[in-house]
Amino acid sequence: MKTTTRFPSTFRALLAVAALAGPPCTATAAVSGETLANQGAPGVAPCASCHGPDGHGNAAGFPSLAGLPAGYLAKQMHDLADGQRRNPIMMPIAKGLSDARIQAVAAYYAGLPPRDGGAASGDHRSAGRELAVNGRWADQLPACVACHGAGARGVAPHFPGLAGQHAGYLESQLQAWKNGTRDNDADGLMKRVAEQLSDEEIKAVSAWLAALPARGQVPDTTRPDPAPARADAVQGHFQPPLLADLPDGPDGEVIRRGAAIFSATPTHADSAPFVGNGQACVNCHLNSGRQADSAPMWAAWGLYPKYRSKNDRINTMADRIVGCFTYSENAQGSAKGVAPAPDSDLVTALQAYMHWQASGAPSGRTLDGQGYPALAAPSQAPSPERGAALFAAHCALCHGDDGQGTARPGTDRPTKDYEFPPLWGPHAYNWGAGMHRVNTGADFIKANMPLGRPGSLTDQQAWDLSAYINSHPRPQDPRFDGDLEATIKAFHGNRDRDYYGKTVNGYKLGAPGTLEQWEKDHDGGARPRANVDAQ
Amino acid sequence: MKTTTRFPSTFRALLAVAALAGPPCTATAAVSGETLANQGAPGVAPCASCHGPDGHGNAAGFPSLAGLPAGYLAKQMHDLADGQRRNPIMMPIAKGLSDARIQAVAAYYAGLPPRDGGAASGDHRSAGRELAVNGRWADQLPACVACHGAGARGVAPHFPGLAGQHAGYLESQLQAWKNGTRDNDADGLMKRVAEQLSDEEIKAVSAWLAALPARGQVPDTTRPDPAPARADAVQGHFQPPLLADLPDGPDGEVIRRGAAIFSATPTHADSAPFVGNGQACVNCHLNSGRQADSAPMWAAWGLYPKYRSKNDRINTMADRIVGCFTYSENAQGSAKGVAPAPDSDLVTALQAYMHWQASGAPSGRTLDGQGYPALAAPSQAPSPERGAALFAAHCALCHGDDGQGTARPGTDRPTKDYEFPPLWGPHAYNWGAGMHRVNTGADFIKANMPLGRPGSLTDQQAWDLSAYINSHPRPQDPRFDGDLEATIKAFHGNRDRDYYGKTVNGYKLGAPGTLEQWEKDHDGGARPRANVDAQ
Repeated sequence: MKTTTRFPSTFRALLAVAALAGPPCTATAAVSGETLANQGAPGVAPCASCHGPDGHGNAAGFPSLAGLPAGYLAKQMHDLADGQRRNPIMMPIAKGLSDARIQAVAAYYAGLPPRDGGAASGDHRSAGRELAVNGRWADQLPACVACHGAGARGVAPHFPGLAGQHAGYLESQLQAWKNGTRDNDADGLMKRVAEQLSDEEIKAVSAWLAALPARGQVPDTTRPDPAPARADAVQGHFQPPLLADLPDGPDGEVIRRGAAIFSATPTHADSAPFVGNGQACVNCHLNSGRQADSAPMWAAWGLYPKYRSKNDRINTMADRIVGCFTYSENAQGSAKGVAPAPDSDLVTALQAYMHWQASGAPSGRTLDGQGYPALAAPSQAPSPERGAALFAAHCALCHGDDGQGTARPGTDRPTKDYEFPPLWGPHAYNWGAGMHRVNTGADFIKANMPLGRPGSLTDQQAWDLSAYINSHPRPQDPRFDGDLEATIKAFHGNRDRDYYGKTVNGYKLGAPGTLEQWEKDHDGGARPRANVDAQ
Repeated sequence: MKTTTRFPSTFRALLAVAALAGPPCTATAAVSGETLANQGAPGVAPCASCHGPDGHGNAAGFPSLAGLPAGYLAKQMHDLADGQRRNPIMMPIAKGLSDARIQAVAAYYAGLPPRDGGAASGDHRSAGRELAVNGRWADQLPACVACHGAGARGVAPHFPGLAGQHAGYLESQLQAWKNGTRDNDADGLMKRVAEQLSDEEIKAVSAWLAALPARGQVPDTTRPDPAPARADAVQGHFQPPLLADLPDGPDGEVIRRGAAIFSATPTHADSAPFVGNGQACVNCHLNSGRQADSAPMWAAWGLYPKYRSKNDRINTMADRIVGCFTYSENAQGSAKGVAPAPDSDLVTALQAYMHWQASGAPSGRTLDGQGYPALAAPSQAPSPERGAALFAAHCALCHGDDGQGTARPGTDRPTKDYEFPPLWGPHAYNWGAGMHRVNTGADFIKANMPLGRPGSLTDQQAWDLSAYINSHPRPQDPRFDGDLEATIKAFHGNRDRDYYGKTVNGYKLGAPGTLEQWEKDHDGGARPRANVDAQ
């Protein structure tokens, strides 16, 4: 049952204002966003009358608009105009604006300084913080900051900032997602999130987010902890240690450093020099490497040393991590140009973190939830064409229409610092990474994507998506020695599951020059989607 | 209750021969061992009349003497003469021989080719083999080959060869040790061993040893397996995997190689270039690193990476193993002059072996039996003087009167290939090894020595022994930078438990030139006890 969003009675009168504003006027003279916001236009009430001259809204139900992504604001206006988002006050106002005016007013508010929640850091121990920064992965519930970005300050164009937003508005929206009165998102992601939250949790998380500063340095309290406070194992799986289990002293210090590297591999000072693309460990190992069926660290740790046919020798965990840098993180394109040494402090810190995650796990045993569950062969051959449509529907929201990911705001490293990683092109994993295999990609996608809704795609959809993603140009296999055929023979033998060496859309994948040509064809090089589009 | 050893009735007549041989004659003309053996002397029956012209004895109860260590044979004759070993046939004969003649005849038999058991390899799967080569460490029962040497061919001067010995004789002696009718060994070691064996097991192990070849290449079947066939955990402790659990393929291969390196570190082709002394991993980690309270690998594996104050950083297991080479195995004195790299195949093989030993052990947990149990502080200050007397009584049998260990036969590496390791001097662990600390040495000794009788020494005795052993010259601490005081300050702060820098018996321990002076004083250099003394 859907109902309209309820508003405080003192504002019901505004319905009348809106109703009186007259018919929609789409062919109007150019008016600046600022003018529209503060003075309105014939038939359009000024936004400022409810959202305030600074765009910060108020505690009585009107959200702060200041600093929200223009793309998000514009989409909301369009959705309000056509009923995708239901709101009796906003609908007539939105209907009264042309697309050009919507863009203008959205850009104006995106450029205003956001409302600051006023808290220096927020209560470190509150249940609201726990949900907001660590999520509740036992229920496949990602943290708010996983999509709404560092400090919950939003990720353009789709994810609004939550920091400093009015608690009451946040609460009302979470309730609206939960009860279905708001559903204008992609893939029902917010419904899936909100459904997991009790009324009490909604209150707690809203209050905590509302109190956050939206400007200045991102407070440490908004960063995920190396482990959550409460059990996060998916039912029936191994429970890695919790935050309270983190040791003090130098062991705890290195584990924390390992965790930080794990989640921010391309930008952490220790690892950045060895990362040649925009991939972090956590991109392939969700929930800080703790999630069952997402190649969790607690399951991987105990399996090494072991033989790997990939390099035909016994690999230690250090070797394995070096392999991740070599392939998944494309070290050849990094500042150092090589992967870190297996006995480096960097690799040791990652091992210390993994070792800790495996606390109590039986060594040498294959645990339930290890790796990605292997899908059965698909009934239809994986299709990049079908995959393209699925990508637009389910993946582009985060990874971009062009698969080039979404960069984080405020960074001078636009090709390395991503909120959501690129999946092909120069800043993606290379042709030697396990993920380039169509089967591995499909396994990962089925069990883990879209974030927060794993398992919602069919097996065939996962295969098709992987085929689409993995049939694009990407950085060279570092084992390539100048001879494509020889490299295929040596390392890319599974021709049914590997696009390396094949020609797709005119690009001979893996051939010298192909990636460069693709970059040239795509506007002079891959560009991660601008993260703050109008400031 | 002690009774004399029983002999087959057909040989009882010989008692009369012996009885008729007349009074002992100690001041006789020089007679060669060969003449004594084959023709006897006035009043002394020729040995050959019972032990055969080749010294191989017979199945009816007379042991083969050929190839046994002269020291062992001479001791038996003396013991038979003075009643320490009770035998009605041999007592009067032994009494009839001067010490010179005993030495001569012992040397003669030691030089004869030993009896060959005839089996190409022996039954790999028999219970007898299992006991002989793997022991039964659940009962602290070391393998026969642990003392009787590779191929059970004996270790001079104290341990007789068992390979090819008559099964009936071996059986009768094990029964004699078991029921107390033979007790002329040090520390009651053989009684402790034999008491653990059922009659059936005595039969099985005797038959298996008797069938072994005593010459030519040592058969692989006589080498300990990487793990025993049956559970060997001391009660209440973790059970590491058994031989049947060893994986096939390249993983199993590297685990086997690691096991071989672990037990023969100074001589294995992979590790020898990095070992500068006579210490193998297994010398400090008994039972192939599987024994509780003997710093077992299954307990160590799960604890790394972890911080160590020794080097003030986080250590991976690879780092830890490198540390063992650096200190316990004195890499500075090796052919390479340095420890192996942490990412070398050598260190990886050892890790693979350790990882396998830890199969099923909970990662990151301190398990019962980890390390050596720490002794409480001793009631009296540890005394090297008391330790010296204890050493002669309990340790010299294997480690030599001068602590220089016992080398293995047939090796051209007399300073590296030891049956029992040297405990001080140039081929021992260096001043940086953990074992040089009096507390660590005492902890190890109490829980593990003498081999097969752990816990039989008092705590004070363990402290005193460690003080004695660790107050001798040994190779320099590799962290020594030319300044003894500075090295003490940096690395040897526990002055109550560390002789480094102290002067004992005129040797300033750890000072440049001290070890060299000690070598000069000790007959031009440390010499491991000759292992085959008369061949």
